[in-house]
Amino acid sequence: MKKLEDLQAIISDAVRKLDFPGYPAKLYEPISYILSLGGKRMRPALLLMACDLFDGDVDAAIPPALAIEIFHNFTLMHDDIMDNAPLRRGQITVHERWNQNVGILSGDVMLIEGYKLMMQVEDRLLRPILDIFNTTAVGVCEGQQVDMEFEQRNDVKIGEYINMIRLKTAVVLGGALKIGALIGGAQLNDADLLSSFGEHLGIAFQLQDDILDVYGDPEKFGKQVGGDIISNKKTYLLIKALELADDQQKSELNGWLALKQFDHAEKVNAITTIYNSLDVRQYAEEEMQAYADKAFEALDAINLPEEHKQYLHDFADGLLVREN
Amino acid sequence: MKKLEDLQAIISDAVRKLDFPGYPAKLYEPISYILSLGGKRMRPALLLMACDLFDGDVDAAIPPALAIEIFHNFTLMHDDIMDNAPLRRGQITVHERWNQNVGILSGDVMLIEGYKLMMQVEDRLLRPILDIFNTTAVGVCEGQQVDMEFEQRNDVKIGEYINMIRLKTAVVLGGALKIGALIGGAQLNDADLLSSFGEHLGIAFQLQDDILDVYGDPEKFGKQVGGDIISNKKTYLLIKALELADDQQKSELNGWLALKQFDHAEKVNAITTIYNSLDVRQYAEEEMQAYADKAFEALDAINLPEEHKQYLHDFADGLLVREN
Repeated sequence: MKKLEDLQAIISDAVRKLDFPGYPAKLYEPISYILSLGGKRMRPALLLMACDLFDGDVDAAIPPALAIEIFHNFTLMHDDIMDNAPLRRGQITVHERWNQNVGILSGDVMLIEGYKLMMQVEDRLLRPILDIFNTTAVGVCEGQQVDMEFEQRNDVKIGEYINMIRLKTAVVLGGALKIGALIGGAQLNDADLLSSFGEHLGIAFQLQDDILDVYGDPEKFGKQVGGDIISNKKTYLLIKALELADDQQKSELNGWLALKQFDHAEKVNAITTIYNSLDVRQYAEEEMQAYADKAFEALDAINLPEEHKQYLHDFADGLLVREN
Repeated sequence: MKKLEDLQAIISDAVRKLDFPGYPAKLYEPISYILSLGGKRMRPALLLMACDLFDGDVDAAIPPALAIEIFHNFTLMHDDIMDNAPLRRGQITVHERWNQNVGILSGDVMLIEGYKLMMQVEDRLLRPILDIFNTTAVGVCEGQQVDMEFEQRNDVKIGEYINMIRLKTAVVLGGALKIGALIGGAQLNDADLLSSFGEHLGIAFQLQDDILDVYGDPEKFGKQVGGDIISNKKTYLLIKALELADDQQKSELNGWLALKQFDHAEKVNAITTIYNSLDVRQYAEEEMQAYADKAFEALDAINLPEEHKQYLHDFADGLLVREN
């Protein structure tokens, strides 16, 4: 089994070697630019890992892995326009560096380039793999739409929230693993179980992210603690708090949510105090654990040698106890 | 051979029967909306026509034809954002009716839905047809980017212009015909010739459009005469005029191009007078005829019964003498 960091290095290397046409420059330069901003290349590395798990030819999985990475960056390019984001990975976003039209059109062509790379598979796998890619891609768009709608709502339910993070972030992890497994020669049943592992792990990971935003060690988390609170992000913690709050707590929460001008630390403190009094961290950890359990259940059922499953188990454990 | 209007009716009917998910509504309603605005359904009808020409099963070609129509409407939805257009086919545009983010994201999901429909072909045709679709889709994006860049330039060359209209409008006609031909059972060589017919015809058609904008009968043309002149659109006529103009004519042309406030009729008259003195209409007609000739040359070489070729010949003649 190849190490995760080796798989990530394979992807980084392959991304560097990607060659797009020189004309029209404003269509293709932004693609090279956003791909050069880095990132952990986790999605494509998972695709390679899945192939390797079934003793498949990892080299053959590189183009579809690149397809997943390009697709992911296409969604980032368009999301940044929609969110009016000035920075991505600490660098200026495409629509700010060029302009919005460049961001829209370069993103569009990235999606097509993603299909072109995803098609670099054996004929017998072409249809099943594209079917997975389509489902994944539609899911991400649906998740983004639902997420944007949540910004305007204060009555989001936990079930809706879980479904949103499933669509927006977990489905693509499941899809990448399933595609990699099929390229690696897995039976459909095992590929489906691996997909289920990835999807549930993705939900658990996102819930952990919600928890760490408030309760993480700022040094290890690498983000501003309370960033979600400051931006009124509808996280599991906020939704659960709004669900459990009594009238006084609810009006205090809604007061903070409505405030346009406030002291950041004061708002983070006040809302964290309400979270603590309602035990929302504990609820979130239980929910996270429930999804992690489902992931491990799917993993256990896969027809793979124990040491390969242990590898995935260790990977998931590493992901879920991270404090960075 | 089925009549063009019957093929268009088949498409209109199939578009009406398209069923998208209900949730999230803001992602899918704009797709149904833009498709309901109508249009001549020319691209998908050409795909069906190509299938019919080779005695193929037209019903089998309907999903890929819908894919071409959805792809076309995806480009319209995103182009309307980029052009800041308030109206499309006389109705309010998606980004105006909902908002810009809805227009971006619904467009994205339309492109994916296009792939899903394009995949509804026999396994043996899946890869060749998707290859054509990818090439077509990339071409349209490249053409749109180049077209936007032309707005900022006064030194566009005729060759660049022809290449832009080839990418933005002609490639998709060639692609639709080629896909339809392959579904209809054509040999690759004949499908390529039919694609070449469509691409050259598309360029001729766009050149005719440039001519009609200035010289067309306003009653039959159905658009405001001189609309391209008023908006400083880089058409064949304007580019040729800038190329042929002497110093005085060039400074007069550039003066009109730079003017922010002007009387519409006065500008149309002044620029048309320059066009007339430089014979740019004649140049445009010769260029148009040259592309029509290339189209008919490709058509003649196709291995099809003469009456089938005559059908396409009549179709092309009808397209190129239209005054509406």
